[in-house]
Amino acid sequence: MLLEDASALGLDCVILAESAQDSAATTASNVIVGSPKDQMALDTLAAAVDVITFDHEIVDLELLAALEARGTSIAPSTSALLHAVDKAAMRLALADRQLPMPRFAVLAPGEALEDPGLGWPLVVKAARGGYDGRGVFVAADLAEATGIVQALHAEGVSALLEEQVAIRAELASLVCRSSSGEIRAWPVVETAQVDGVCREVLIPGSVSDRYRAEGEALARTIAEELDVVGVLAVELFITGEGLVINELAMRPHNSGHWTQDGSVTSQFENHLRAVAGLPLGSTKTTAPFVASVNVFGGAEQRSPHASLAEALSVEGAHVHLYGKAPRQGRKLGHVTVAGSDPEHVRRAAWHGALALGTPLPDALRMGAL
Amino acid sequence: MLLEDASALGLDCVILAESAQDSAATTASNVIVGSPKDQMALDTLAAAVDVITFDHEIVDLELLAALEARGTSIAPSTSALLHAVDKAAMRLALADRQLPMPRFAVLAPGEALEDPGLGWPLVVKAARGGYDGRGVFVAADLAEATGIVQALHAEGVSALLEEQVAIRAELASLVCRSSSGEIRAWPVVETAQVDGVCREVLIPGSVSDRYRAEGEALARTIAEELDVVGVLAVELFITGEGLVINELAMRPHNSGHWTQDGSVTSQFENHLRAVAGLPLGSTKTTAPFVASVNVFGGAEQRSPHASLAEALSVEGAHVHLYGKAPRQGRKLGHVTVAGSDPEHVRRAAWHGALALGTPLPDALRMGAL
Repeated sequence: MLLEDASALGLDCVILAESAQDSAATTASNVIVGSPKDQMALDTLAAAVDVITFDHEIVDLELLAALEARGTSIAPSTSALLHAVDKAAMRLALADRQLPMPRFAVLAPGEALEDPGLGWPLVVKAARGGYDGRGVFVAADLAEATGIVQALHAEGVSALLEEQVAIRAELASLVCRSSSGEIRAWPVVETAQVDGVCREVLIPGSVSDRYRAEGEALARTIAEELDVVGVLAVELFITGEGLVINELAMRPHNSGHWTQDGSVTSQFENHLRAVAGLPLGSTKTTAPFVASVNVFGGAEQRSPHASLAEALSVEGAHVHLYGKAPRQGRKLGHVTVAGSDPEHVRRAAWHGALALGTPLPDALRMGAL
Repeated sequence: MLLEDASALGLDCVILAESAQDSAATTASNVIVGSPKDQMALDTLAAAVDVITFDHEIVDLELLAALEARGTSIAPSTSALLHAVDKAAMRLALADRQLPMPRFAVLAPGEALEDPGLGWPLVVKAARGGYDGRGVFVAADLAEATGIVQALHAEGVSALLEEQVAIRAELASLVCRSSSGEIRAWPVVETAQVDGVCREVLIPGSVSDRYRAEGEALARTIAEELDVVGVLAVELFITGEGLVINELAMRPHNSGHWTQDGSVTSQFENHLRAVAGLPLGSTKTTAPFVASVNVFGGAEQRSPHASLAEALSVEGAHVHLYGKAPRQGRKLGHVTVAGSDPEHVRRAAWHGALALGTPLPDALRMGAL
């Protein structure tokens, strides 16, 4: 999706992809096939471009830092990116700034778990390598937690222990920060997660003015404090004590895909502008209500292309497919609808996603559909 | 630009480009380098795709018709496309349907010119091969017209003779027709041409409700009568006697580039939907006023990339660059702004285009800039 906006701006891209079958590799004109953790692949990429940026955080920070030290521009910089790659580093850095978070503790490999005093059940996360709910565990008691921590430590990964907060709603606050320090914020959105995976994004959803303002202020603060260049997504929980920060991403994020069809400037275009040292574009919405629903593979592993016509017959539906093979539970695309009626846009976006084979999650209150 | 929307819909494209340096070839993942008038290149393309479509009309209709006869899907079909390729065939076909046009006559090679009784000066056009004002001549008298006609005939091209109408304004009516016959119309726009080249597009501009309705009806009629599949652009003149049809294009057209940033569905996406046999998307505008200004190379042949930051600092400016080398007078991109104030959006779009090095045409009334 970055490539689509890069094409419009006339920015040339070189993609480092693990496989020639990766989505980005099949649409790009200029592809290096190699691992983002491979020195030679990174050197080849660095020699071909003015700046390196990312669409995921499964990267090797040491290799990247060495590239940076040799003069390669990397945006966001590795010192910022650390906080998106390593959840423990993120918690420690944000705690230093007294930002609202669940209470937590970090256990590096070699450190033994004692009751951290965060209550039970306890959330145990892999500090690195998790994605879409993977690497996040809930331990009922000390014995279970110890097992999880030992398994993480055996892989050389630190464990992040967090109190389990009572979540009233989940929000995401999306901003983009340019290399000159300019920050633009899109409106804070409400997200619905099922099993740790985002299923729908509603703008503005049920977000109150207070939480919208607080959420935006938090993302602005984090972008400045961590010196982020590019998009920063801050996942937030509303709890009984107010907002707390869940996770960070420093790249175009699923909670911001709606900006392609509901904002003057998409998160992809602003990310490109930021990393290319260009001024940022307007983050205003183009409609009062927007809904974006993720498309997932179902049990029958049917390609969403088989029912593309049905999805496109939903009036106003913007369909985005990622060109991925349709495995069960795999995110294959999203459908966005913008308009003046919140119920209508949500229903229409779900109709599009369901037409494309997305299973309807029981956990969402979908009565109106 | 078709590739950007094809990427979103997950449609795989193979590009037949004359040179590996063509804009489309430098952004596409799958390119055949060859002439669209070369049998072997066309055969290779036909073997690789489900349907062939076009972004220009410099094609060989006979070769394409032979492909069609052998079972290749071509959209629009060659029998429709004839009327975009050949202006004489277009005039004759629309005259059969009694549609409003300047009075005209057609002179095939071998036929001698006598005074056609269309008044002087007389417009003489190459029936095929013209583009952006090229192939259009104004002859003051019979001697001059004879010279032009003979030159066209020497190249084997028919001459289309037209009365010179007094143009009060120029409009363009853009529709898309699906393979099932569904038609969607974008609002009729006002265009400003200088030396036969479109400089700006205003939505709705000064188009009256009457001409908007008539212009849309004309394009719908032509799309049906000529069995067009895909985008049809109808360039129109407002004259003292009302609307007359100037030219047709059966592809995404410069007068519709604004739809990328001012309409729910862009002309590029709807063209792709149509030729892929998919239902069409909403052609509603996303803002009451839209202005789109073309970016041209100036005398100094400066690349628009050199001042991209300046153009992007214009709030709300959507910059689209085509990746072409900056020759004087060459169309290099466009800048679109949508909003609620017609003067503001026009000024902002011009500011963006001027920042990118576009010379300001004397012929436009640009006082407000």
